[in-house]
Amino acid sequence: MKDVFRRIRARGDDGVWISTVAEADLAARAAAVPAGLPLSGLTFAVKDNIDVAGLPTTAACPDFAYRPATTAPVVQRLLDAGALLVGKTNLDQFATGLTGTRSPYGTPESVFGGGLISGGSSSGSAVAVAAGLVDFALGTDTAGSGRVPAALNGIVGLKPTRGLLSTLGVVPACRSLDCVSIFAPTVERAAAVLRAARGPADGDPWGRTGSRPAAGPAGLRLATARSLDFFGDAGQEKAFAAGLGRFPGRPREIDIAPLLEAGDLLYRGPWVAERLADLDAFLAGHPDSVLPVTRRVLETGRQFSAVDAWRGLHRLRELRAWTDRLWDTVDVLVLPTIGTTYTRDEIAADPIGRNLELGRYTQFANLLDLAAITVPNGLTADGRPASLTLFGPAFSEETLIALAAGPELMTVAVVGLHLSGEPRNHELTERGATLLGAATTAPCYRLYRLPSGVPGLVRDDTGGPIDVELWQLPAAAVGGLLAGIAAPLSLGRIALADGTEATGFLCEAYAVGAAQDITAGGGWRAHRCASERQDT
Amino acid sequence: MKDVFRRIRARGDDGVWISTVAEADLAARAAAVPAGLPLSGLTFAVKDNIDVAGLPTTAACPDFAYRPATTAPVVQRLLDAGALLVGKTNLDQFATGLTGTRSPYGTPESVFGGGLISGGSSSGSAVAVAAGLVDFALGTDTAGSGRVPAALNGIVGLKPTRGLLSTLGVVPACRSLDCVSIFAPTVERAAAVLRAARGPADGDPWGRTGSRPAAGPAGLRLATARSLDFFGDAGQEKAFAAGLGRFPGRPREIDIAPLLEAGDLLYRGPWVAERLADLDAFLAGHPDSVLPVTRRVLETGRQFSAVDAWRGLHRLRELRAWTDRLWDTVDVLVLPTIGTTYTRDEIAADPIGRNLELGRYTQFANLLDLAAITVPNGLTADGRPASLTLFGPAFSEETLIALAAGPELMTVAVVGLHLSGEPRNHELTERGATLLGAATTAPCYRLYRLPSGVPGLVRDDTGGPIDVELWQLPAAAVGGLLAGIAAPLSLGRIALADGTEATGFLCEAYAVGAAQDITAGGGWRAHRCASERQDT
Repeated sequence: MKDVFRRIRARGDDGVWISTVAEADLAARAAAVPAGLPLSGLTFAVKDNIDVAGLPTTAACPDFAYRPATTAPVVQRLLDAGALLVGKTNLDQFATGLTGTRSPYGTPESVFGGGLISGGSSSGSAVAVAAGLVDFALGTDTAGSGRVPAALNGIVGLKPTRGLLSTLGVVPACRSLDCVSIFAPTVERAAAVLRAARGPADGDPWGRTGSRPAAGPAGLRLATARSLDFFGDAGQEKAFAAGLGRFPGRPREIDIAPLLEAGDLLYRGPWVAERLADLDAFLAGHPDSVLPVTRRVLETGRQFSAVDAWRGLHRLRELRAWTDRLWDTVDVLVLPTIGTTYTRDEIAADPIGRNLELGRYTQFANLLDLAAITVPNGLTADGRPASLTLFGPAFSEETLIALAAGPELMTVAVVGLHLSGEPRNHELTERGATLLGAATTAPCYRLYRLPSGVPGLVRDDTGGPIDVELWQLPAAAVGGLLAGIAAPLSLGRIALADGTEATGFLCEAYAVGAAQDITAGGGWRAHRCASERQDT
Repeated sequence: MKDVFRRIRARGDDGVWISTVAEADLAARAAAVPAGLPLSGLTFAVKDNIDVAGLPTTAACPDFAYRPATTAPVVQRLLDAGALLVGKTNLDQFATGLTGTRSPYGTPESVFGGGLISGGSSSGSAVAVAAGLVDFALGTDTAGSGRVPAALNGIVGLKPTRGLLSTLGVVPACRSLDCVSIFAPTVERAAAVLRAARGPADGDPWGRTGSRPAAGPAGLRLATARSLDFFGDAGQEKAFAAGLGRFPGRPREIDIAPLLEAGDLLYRGPWVAERLADLDAFLAGHPDSVLPVTRRVLETGRQFSAVDAWRGLHRLRELRAWTDRLWDTVDVLVLPTIGTTYTRDEIAADPIGRNLELGRYTQFANLLDLAAITVPNGLTADGRPASLTLFGPAFSEETLIALAAGPELMTVAVVGLHLSGEPRNHELTERGATLLGAATTAPCYRLYRLPSGVPGLVRDDTGGPIDVELWQLPAAAVGGLLAGIAAPLSLGRIALADGTEATGFLCEAYAVGAAQDITAGGGWRAHRCASERQDT
């Protein structure tokens, strides 16, 4: 906790925060919280459309801001569980949008950089968690605002069943659909926050209680979509296909057209008008206070009549009946969280069209009364985050959590024939491994080409840095990987250039006497390319 | 069954039926139905907004009529349970209205006569049951159409939880609120029909299953309204107060303002527009096919925007939360079904305003997801039917049925000091007795004024007819009544002028030797008035 503010300051003007508590107050509070509470000492951030007494609520609209007299019950539960509030985070104005680019308080960038959007509307909360500024954060999720930014920042986003977390003290977007959501670095932490945050609040007309027996991952009936649109992003498509392999059993393929149709009702149907039910008077009285893109989206709600609203509700009822029947034969539906990622420039070029694309696989969830959890799914080859979302019926959180937490994962550094594109790479992929990215060893290794033609890495302080790839795979699968390799290779611990360590392939020193030292090339792939050039 | 058509014909042009099956077909079907099914041999009618293959569905609009290919699943279940369909009944056009006066197929009169409306919209179904033409009937109930006509015809109207009876094959009024309802002469029969009719239908998006443990009448926590508007009808007010005494314990008085506010949303709020969601195209294409009053009501739906619809839905959610909390402390809410009755002329004078008054205590039920049963509650002094309705939360039907069936009731004929306004009448009212009405004995009784001043009725073939009153009270309370009377009075069986018999007050013949024979006056009240005139 103690260096939270130092880390916040170190990031400079990152567009993550709208307000923070006083540094001294956080320290005092940290000293006062007893140990042993469920969330004792964990720091957290709250999206700035949720009331916290003592801080303004802006909904990312300065002229809308007010100072709430009371703290939203869902936040109070976290405080009561020992968590330490750091501040309020940036969002797409009035929680309308999935891009993280619609705020006068700045545009947070994804922690993956490269101009990638943070996603929204809970942009600040997701980045605060992904950048390690806080231990968890609250967002809200009406169309996907608790999942899209999790996907773009490589973290977990838990969107509980509507009403399970109280929305009392939350600035309404679409009251009938709004959920409070949870961002965390791991599934386990998101689950701990959920258990502390859930529960009814007095006077909350939208609160619901309910439960469903939790099922363990074994024997779950999984499904995925028969066809998916990645908007031309082959990297995301490949990552999703690989990600499906993480789960036990092969998901059944279903037609998700009814889900997509339900999702379309949200921005292209009468639910846009629901946003005006609360904001209409403010829009009318403050013509210059709302961002043009936000106003443009909201005002499309005026074109719908009450008859249109009822027709939408009737069609939704039919689609929900379809979904309810789906849960007779499926326990969990697995979809990509987003089809592709966008940079800030790409969003600027088509702010509304690309927003809709970001919501393709998220926006039906609340309309159809689903629970959802978004989890990281490795990286694309060009280093962008991939993500998938598990959906279940209302109150299926514990089943989704158990499946998402999945087996314990291990990171393995590979240096030679297990690299992408190399002959033994399949030994990783067939075990459900996903590529985390490229890395370099600390500058204290030598790489050899053994007489058998196999590369071997040996620690040697007179050596240099060697290129490796980091792969993540279930810890339970590592034994099988080890059984498949022969002396002089071994799996040990490798020091990386960034100061961390990973399990990885090493070579016993006895074997390198007659081997060719290829350290100078900096890695196996570089050596191989050079020899191929030589051969031709 | 065999004289159904004779009885239908005997009533002439009563506006009850829109179509009937062929007499020979009914006879053939009756012969074919096996005995021993739950509803074997019971005849029934179906409101003509519910599909039955082989008969047109008109919704009381000839130009709207179509011939359905299939029978609505809820009707099919009754047929499968052995019931015999007689025909399709009249209704307020498109089930819009509570009066029974809005149909081109005629205006049924209440079986109580005097120009009293039948109530609607399920006018024909209620009269068909009340007049003894069929053993039960299906109606529909969106705003009270399954309860108001039961009240005006002195029968039972059961409005189940939304979705418990499938609305597949029902012409929609307000899809999100529509229920199929049951009319029957007794609670027991309504319950038997419910059990046969309930259950999901394939492809019904509005179907719901659910249950709630049934509670016996003892220990139920009852409530009624702290203040009620009977629109100046003192007779109904008195009947309702007396009717509350039928239940075990004294109902707690609560403020029902939230219920009334919810009810007002139906015709004065955006739910009118829901009716247009299905009917708009027909209205536009058939300017002269719809009754002016119906068109006027429906077209008010056009004034609402989608934003209005959402505001209505949000307010309803708050009101429903209030109601859900009510069920934490109350099991059953008891209200008058209607505040007052109207004649056809009174409705003609103010067709929309009085329709709203008829719905005051019915129209909130479906909005707030309640189950309801309407039961007869005796008569007003001027011979109009009184009625009350029991409400419980969704799926509380079995609790409501058990309470409504109540204790076994007995009718007692009183002849002297127990008559209304006489000194010992309180011995009846304090036992929860309700006045059924005035009657006359068969012409074979003598009435005496005993030397003690008490009247005594003695059977004597040389006597004449004597005025009595018929009171209904719990059979269990009759013992207490008997314990309170002294010789020579007794409780025995009295023959009535209409050929029936009732338990009633008699006098042993030994005691009349010195008594004054007042038979010629025709009754105790007539004798007393005459003596009072003599005294002055």
